[in-house]
Amino acid sequence: MSDSLGAAGVHMANGFDPREGADVAPEVARLLQRRDRVLGPAYRLFYEKPVAVREAHGARLTGHDGRVYLDAYNNVPVIGHSHPKVRQAVAEQLGRLNTHTRYLTEPIIEYSERLLATFPDPLSRVTYACTGSEAVDLAIRIARHRTGRSGIIISQHAYHGTTVAAAQLSPSLGPNNRLGEHVVTVPSVDTARTPVSEVGPRMTASVRRAVEELEGRGDGVAAVIFDSVLSSDGVQTEPAGFLRGAAEVVRAAGGLYIADEVQAGFGRTGGWWGFERHGLLPDLAVLGKPMGNGMPISAVVGTLDAQERFGSEVRYFNTFGGNPVSIAAAAAVLDVLEEEGLLAHARHTGDRLLAGLRRIMADNERVFHVRGAGMFLAADLGQPDDPSAPDPRLATRVVNGMREAGVLISASGPAAASLKIRPPLAFTEDDADELLEVLEKVVATESRQ
Amino acid sequence: MSDSLGAAGVHMANGFDPREGADVAPEVARLLQRRDRVLGPAYRLFYEKPVAVREAHGARLTGHDGRVYLDAYNNVPVIGHSHPKVRQAVAEQLGRLNTHTRYLTEPIIEYSERLLATFPDPLSRVTYACTGSEAVDLAIRIARHRTGRSGIIISQHAYHGTTVAAAQLSPSLGPNNRLGEHVVTVPSVDTARTPVSEVGPRMTASVRRAVEELEGRGDGVAAVIFDSVLSSDGVQTEPAGFLRGAAEVVRAAGGLYIADEVQAGFGRTGGWWGFERHGLLPDLAVLGKPMGNGMPISAVVGTLDAQERFGSEVRYFNTFGGNPVSIAAAAAVLDVLEEEGLLAHARHTGDRLLAGLRRIMADNERVFHVRGAGMFLAADLGQPDDPSAPDPRLATRVVNGMREAGVLISASGPAAASLKIRPPLAFTEDDADELLEVLEKVVATESRQ
Repeated sequence: MSDSLGAAGVHMANGFDPREGADVAPEVARLLQRRDRVLGPAYRLFYEKPVAVREAHGARLTGHDGRVYLDAYNNVPVIGHSHPKVRQAVAEQLGRLNTHTRYLTEPIIEYSERLLATFPDPLSRVTYACTGSEAVDLAIRIARHRTGRSGIIISQHAYHGTTVAAAQLSPSLGPNNRLGEHVVTVPSVDTARTPVSEVGPRMTASVRRAVEELEGRGDGVAAVIFDSVLSSDGVQTEPAGFLRGAAEVVRAAGGLYIADEVQAGFGRTGGWWGFERHGLLPDLAVLGKPMGNGMPISAVVGTLDAQERFGSEVRYFNTFGGNPVSIAAAAAVLDVLEEEGLLAHARHTGDRLLAGLRRIMADNERVFHVRGAGMFLAADLGQPDDPSAPDPRLATRVVNGMREAGVLISASGPAAASLKIRPPLAFTEDDADELLEVLEKVVATESRQ
Repeated sequence: MSDSLGAAGVHMANGFDPREGADVAPEVARLLQRRDRVLGPAYRLFYEKPVAVREAHGARLTGHDGRVYLDAYNNVPVIGHSHPKVRQAVAEQLGRLNTHTRYLTEPIIEYSERLLATFPDPLSRVTYACTGSEAVDLAIRIARHRTGRSGIIISQHAYHGTTVAAAQLSPSLGPNNRLGEHVVTVPSVDTARTPVSEVGPRMTASVRRAVEELEGRGDGVAAVIFDSVLSSDGVQTEPAGFLRGAAEVVRAAGGLYIADEVQAGFGRTGGWWGFERHGLLPDLAVLGKPMGNGMPISAVVGTLDAQERFGSEVRYFNTFGGNPVSIAAAAAVLDVLEEEGLLAHARHTGDRLLAGLRRIMADNERVFHVRGAGMFLAADLGQPDDPSAPDPRLATRVVNGMREAGVLISASGPAAASLKIRPPLAFTEDDADELLEVLEKVVATESRQ
């Protein structure tokens, strides 16, 4: 497998390439064949040898061959795969009512009250959709309508989704995916290779230049949108606070700050929302993936000021958005996050994982940098002769070596050389130790290849 | 309530206007107040007096006040509200596995094989998303990538969704929602006021002019997209076949024909797909609403030729799209549609409803025209002095009068003067007779106002 080019030259970290003819089990080969005959050609699978999954519980997936994998990658099942409380809440609601928001129903109101209580006061209204892409797309509509301008500022290796408008904000989808005309990128912040005191000032200066470029073109700035952990840019987490200046610059130019919390939100970084680490107050926040533990639900949360003009002049209806069943799942997720103290757990387990990554780095010079916020962590792998030079081939070997050893992680970043470690929050201390033990061995083995 | 202007002048048939100060029950007033404090300002409710719903089963909804309503409007719960087979399938799958398509899982393959068997052979590949909007948006990306062109042809009062790209194809969202630069509209076909033999030729000629306009501008035609029942254009169903010429014209110009089956599909018109009535073969078909009986799932089904270039050069990943739980719901829907013979039932019950509408029309000159395909029907209401002139005020009174009498329908069309009758397919002959009996009375009463 080529490290960052999947089928037909499409850039994708950790993609399966059927042309490589990997030696898979006969049952997997049959599934692959049937799949190719019915699914659209835009689908991609993970790993040199795809993982065929039959069931999953907590932080473990079971393969078709009975093999059990430790899941250190999936952020959607935030409270654990197949969680009984989500199952029960969904089953109960499916037996009672599942209709849309043009009738008046109580569950969506109750949940919204609880959800908004986790946000700072000015973020006081929520609109539901079904996917992160839809929520990003809606936030862009709202921002453009509010400001009367078209320009959007994004990070150079951003990923914000797959609708036409969201893909136009997603350079990480590769060179065949064109950015929007009114979209300006700022350089990916590379915290591993930037003095800590300069990360914030550089980001602020980049955003200021982008604002000037948009104003020079006559587009003006409608919004900046940043993933609060800059996941596809390689998971950029330190120093907390480095996005604050960017928000101030955009706000001063009359644009909105949109926090993409699809990856960072719901406790992932150890607090409710990733923007909190940066000491900034967004105009709009976009929520998704873990919100319903896998049931499709997403949202835009924002100030009334940001949303009012769009709301009064246009309108928005999403047939499945905020349906009582997805809301029931989302409410069960809030219950478990609170009852089981998973935000504090994310901080403690995240610290344990980060300390372990630091030990591995100390023992292996090919591990150039490690970082993380809560349970979202990364390790940059480097070349043997110059560890500061990213080594995507080594990252690919480590990701696939981990899979062979029974632990699921992936790679990320502009060079696809940053290991991405992002387990369900239902990941115990023992799971963390198991992950670190396997990682240490695999990195040692693959570094010697 | 103004007939077609909702809050703040946004065009919406059958929208609740809080400024009208409708006399609602105290419990409903409290819910409205709490709702306003948390939901985004883009939300709208149905009816002069919103319906507060507590539960729903089969074709009946129960209000907060215990009142039972006959549902003759909702197409999402196609096999009936709170269907036990969907509930069971979802609960079982939620206890086992709910992950994404980058692992290999069997349920999505099995379901895809079954789904594609309901399509003509050339439509051989399916890609899943979560909402009709996402599927329309994806179809547009695929069509533009396939053709290398940007122009899209739509109907004048079309509705195709709420993403940036889908809203640009949705003039029915009102004047504050701008169409795309590369979008050209053709006049709404008004089958009630057009000689039957001219409906098809007029549509074909309109589409030919639109193709010429796009080619003249240098955009070229990427695709035409039509809802196969032209629902928001007033439900335009007769004569079957009138869209075929349009498809031929676009195909000859090198563009794709996209059938929007979000409303027409899954048995609604008495066959599997609405395009079948028109004797045409689309390049892409977009599925949504009833697909999972309310669980969020949608799809693009199309030829390999239409999808191949996008699939090999870009890629598409939708985190929740085609997840095993939504697939389980969709499979249960197929089971019930087949086991209970609901396609034939839609034809028979639809015929019964249409015959009843004809009787009402014969007795009341304000009913200018009735039509339908399967269980998607419409009745145009007209002015007292000239019944051929649309009367949106009468339509609003009838829709709200029906609600007061315990039957839920809505209005549609460019003038918002077409009653829209579109019950779950789990709507019995007795339900049909009840609907007709109430409708006859309400139309008679309101016509005399």
